[in-house]
Amino acid sequence: SSANIRHSQVKRNVLVMIGDDAGFESQIYNNSVCKTPNLNKLAERSLIFKHSYTSVSSCSPSRSAILTGLPEHQNGMYGLHNGYHHFESFEEVRSLPFILNQSNIRTGLIGKKHVGPEDVYPFEFEYSGENNPILQVGRNITLMKELAHKFFQTQDERPFFLYIGFHDPHRCGHTLPQYGQFCEKFGNGEPGMGKIVDWKPTLYDPADVIVPYFVQDTPVARADLAAQYTTISRLDQGIGLILGELEAAGHLDDTLIIYSSDNGIPFPYGRTNAYEPSTAEPLLVSSPLHPERKGQVTEAFASLLDIVPTVLDWFNITYPSYSLQKKKIVQLTGTSLLPVLKSEPAKGFDAAFMSQDLHEITMFYPMRALRTRNMRLIHNLNFKMPFPIDQDFYISRTFQDILNRTRQGEPLHWFSSLERYYYRPEWELFDMDSDPQETTNVAKNAKYASVFREMKEQLLAWQNVTADPFICYPWGVLQDSGAYKEHNKCFPLDNGL
Amino acid sequence: SSANIRHSQVKRNVLVMIGDDAGFESQIYNNSVCKTPNLNKLAERSLIFKHSYTSVSSCSPSRSAILTGLPEHQNGMYGLHNGYHHFESFEEVRSLPFILNQSNIRTGLIGKKHVGPEDVYPFEFEYSGENNPILQVGRNITLMKELAHKFFQTQDERPFFLYIGFHDPHRCGHTLPQYGQFCEKFGNGEPGMGKIVDWKPTLYDPADVIVPYFVQDTPVARADLAAQYTTISRLDQGIGLILGELEAAGHLDDTLIIYSSDNGIPFPYGRTNAYEPSTAEPLLVSSPLHPERKGQVTEAFASLLDIVPTVLDWFNITYPSYSLQKKKIVQLTGTSLLPVLKSEPAKGFDAAFMSQDLHEITMFYPMRALRTRNMRLIHNLNFKMPFPIDQDFYISRTFQDILNRTRQGEPLHWFSSLERYYYRPEWELFDMDSDPQETTNVAKNAKYASVFREMKEQLLAWQNVTADPFICYPWGVLQDSGAYKEHNKCFPLDNGL
Ligand SMILES: [Ca+2]
Ligand SMILES: [Ca+2]
Ligand SMILES: [Mg+2]
Ligand SMILES: [Mg+2]
Repeated sequence: SSANIRHSQVKRNVLVMIGDDAGFESQIYNNSVCKTPNLNKLAERSLIFKHSYTSVSSCSPSRSAILTGLPEHQNGMYGLHNGYHHFESFEEVRSLPFILNQSNIRTGLIGKKHVGPEDVYPFEFEYSGENNPILQVGRNITLMKELAHKFFQTQDERPFFLYIGFHDPHRCGHTLPQYGQFCEKFGNGEPGMGKIVDWKPTLYDPADVIVPYFVQDTPVARADLAAQYTTISRLDQGIGLILGELEAAGHLDDTLIIYSSDNGIPFPYGRTNAYEPSTAEPLLVSSPLHPERKGQVTEAFASLLDIVPTVLDWFNITYPSYSLQKKKIVQLTGTSLLPVLKSEPAKGFDAAFMSQDLHEITMFYPMRALRTRNMRLIHNLNFKMPFPIDQDFYISRTFQDILNRTRQGEPLHWFSSLERYYYRPEWELFDMDSDPQETTNVAKNAKYASVFREMKEQLLAWQNVTADPFICYPWGVLQDSGAYKEHNKCFPLDNGL
Repeated sequence: SSANIRHSQVKRNVLVMIGDDAGFESQIYNNSVCKTPNLNKLAERSLIFKHSYTSVSSCSPSRSAILTGLPEHQNGMYGLHNGYHHFESFEEVRSLPFILNQSNIRTGLIGKKHVGPEDVYPFEFEYSGENNPILQVGRNITLMKELAHKFFQTQDERPFFLYIGFHDPHRCGHTLPQYGQFCEKFGNGEPGMGKIVDWKPTLYDPADVIVPYFVQDTPVARADLAAQYTTISRLDQGIGLILGELEAAGHLDDTLIIYSSDNGIPFPYGRTNAYEPSTAEPLLVSSPLHPERKGQVTEAFASLLDIVPTVLDWFNITYPSYSLQKKKIVQLTGTSLLPVLKSEPAKGFDAAFMSQDLHEITMFYPMRALRTRNMRLIHNLNFKMPFPIDQDFYISRTFQDILNRTRQGEPLHWFSSLERYYYRPEWELFDMDSDPQETTNVAKNAKYASVFREMKEQLLAWQNVTADPFICYPWGVLQDSGAYKEHNKCFPLDNGL
């Protein structure tokens, strides 16, 4: 970063709060129905990003990118960490908590971690789904408040980095259907549901919810969204409780606060996809040292890959020099967002790269994408096969509704079809100005030939800098050892692709 | 096993020797050209299996199956262990060395290990590619001899299990081209090649090699095979040296000796495929306590998944009771081969199951296969995409020769074509009696409808018993948690597959 905004006298801490599958269900992003008073309050002291993107719309891969600043294809977390998916980052990766631990910053994590191995993501203070029931440390906001209290209470003169991984508003119909589709009943005080003392569930009438254009407008989908909204009330109140603890500990005015979400909402074209609703994320950045733009909205693009550079900039720590797979020195491709907190950038901050490989072990559907200010380019690498559906989303009422309506030949009330959803061309190019819903692929439209070519080159350059093992897929084979160790090369397979 | 052949007074040790990409280039398997005097000598005291199959034709996955008795999809080693492929078995897996360590058996490994994590595959004595240069511990047969000497010399009253992972005759043109295509020049005493004291390289005229039906008969492929043969002379002499050390240590008459290879030879239709040349492996089993069938050939089918049950049977150890992914108790699907050493089995030993997922991280091409006495069934799960080619084989002269001839429209001198090699139907069924070269897919032949159906059922039953996450792929989604935790179920995607 070029910004030099050091105040060495001031104590500097960081609080990162990440929602799980949370989207734009908030007044901050013009949803007038789903009430988020605590997020709204945080937004008043934040810069609000309206073009913020995850680098991958899948839980563990996204969290690995948030915590390493490296896309999943570079840090090794190609898919989900849990169960037989079993993905883990490379042992050599220098994650943010690793770097901070070495820099005399106190690190803490409460809630959902979902990355590994432990040695790569070491938090000094950790109450996560890896060592505790995720339902408790990630959804019981009273417990989370108490854990934050415990973290702040500890006598420690070092600056801190505290990461809160809310498990809300993730679905739970797949694993814990007794609590509802989004665990919206968990802790609501009804018989068998337990009681989360601090949570006052907000209920919604399905008739009132705002149905995003990428979800079918049917009673079933509306009920699903209403349940999601209720769970968001727990997330929102949890944010309020954590911020209350921060304030009570006297750290509201020396702590950089970042709020975002790991991936798109668990609806069609959301999570596990590479479209706008899949990758766009809420992002609030609040800095007590940057009062200039409080409550403003920025047009600057941000990526969740920017979180590591931003936090390192905040602490004035240099990213370490090391290499992965005995290749070239690892370089962060994100940028510190602190300068944007001072003034709207005159240039830059106008592109976001994306990279996804597997999600579940069976869900091999690598995608690489580039979102510029006006366009989105998606490269679907396993495009001849149908787009895969995850276990969690499959069992959801919304997806079952699409399946049932398709089978029965009933109206879908959807802007898409199951067939279009499953079968995608290798390259998709959308004009986001004239076609914000990404319905018309212009990859073969002559008018877009030069932008298509340029974006492909940009994407390839990013894949190269980030050592993407898929850089030659599916038409060629990457050679990067032996005679090609210094100058990696793609060789053609002549397989017709 | 039903066999009860205990001699508790006799000390019982095990020596397992695994070639790397070794095939049937030996007089034992009717190759009269490639000289293997040491293997021949071992065969004289062994039962020779002519229907032995790896459960997966890929290095790390196969070695994980050899050492756990579980197919790769069950033990988690979905692909290669090294580099950015980065696959590892589940932490909960109870491998053979783990079980033996707990049973007061001394464990040792020299050479290629290529599986992880360390905690899952713990050898007390280990000089492997994980902690030493693989070129030395896996190809320098003098060093390997000395390491074996060191292992045998150690004062230790416990029985032992020693695993020798020869790196020969693996290709090395991909990583170390200076030593030749198969490292056939490494240590041959020529300038810059170093000198392996005990190795007397056997050289071959390309005109003399036996070209298997699945390799094109061209000068380039013949030269490749001649180089492979020379490297096999190092493997064969290495086997002689190890057996010499075993004898010198006085253990020739109390040690079960097993020789095999991890996967098919690195030629088309060999390694990474699911055909006969991909999965059939040499297998010699020599037991000093079973002299009945020394030097005989058996018609019994064997799988490398049988090695764990065989070794446990030999040591009279019960496989531990545990579960993976909190699911049902893990059960070995292999069978002890010791009864076959006594007499040709009247029934059973007539099928081998196969399961492959990725090899390199970019090589997603899951296959499930069943070889019965007369038939082979292959399920290609990602069949709409071209079959992937690994970095090592791609750069080989043999594959480049196929590419060049195809591009230039020259005769291939091959029983196949590049297009047929890349594009495969979802289901392949071959009549191995009438079509041993697997050229005619009879999956849609009405005559085979019932055997097709029965084999599909057998394959599915095996996938079920071995907790295959791909059991519903590509037509459905597996639900195995929440409401479906006890009774897992495949749900249809309606994706046209
Ligand atoms: Ca998520
Ligand atoms: Ca191998
Ligand atoms: Mg693990
Ligand atoms: Mg690793």
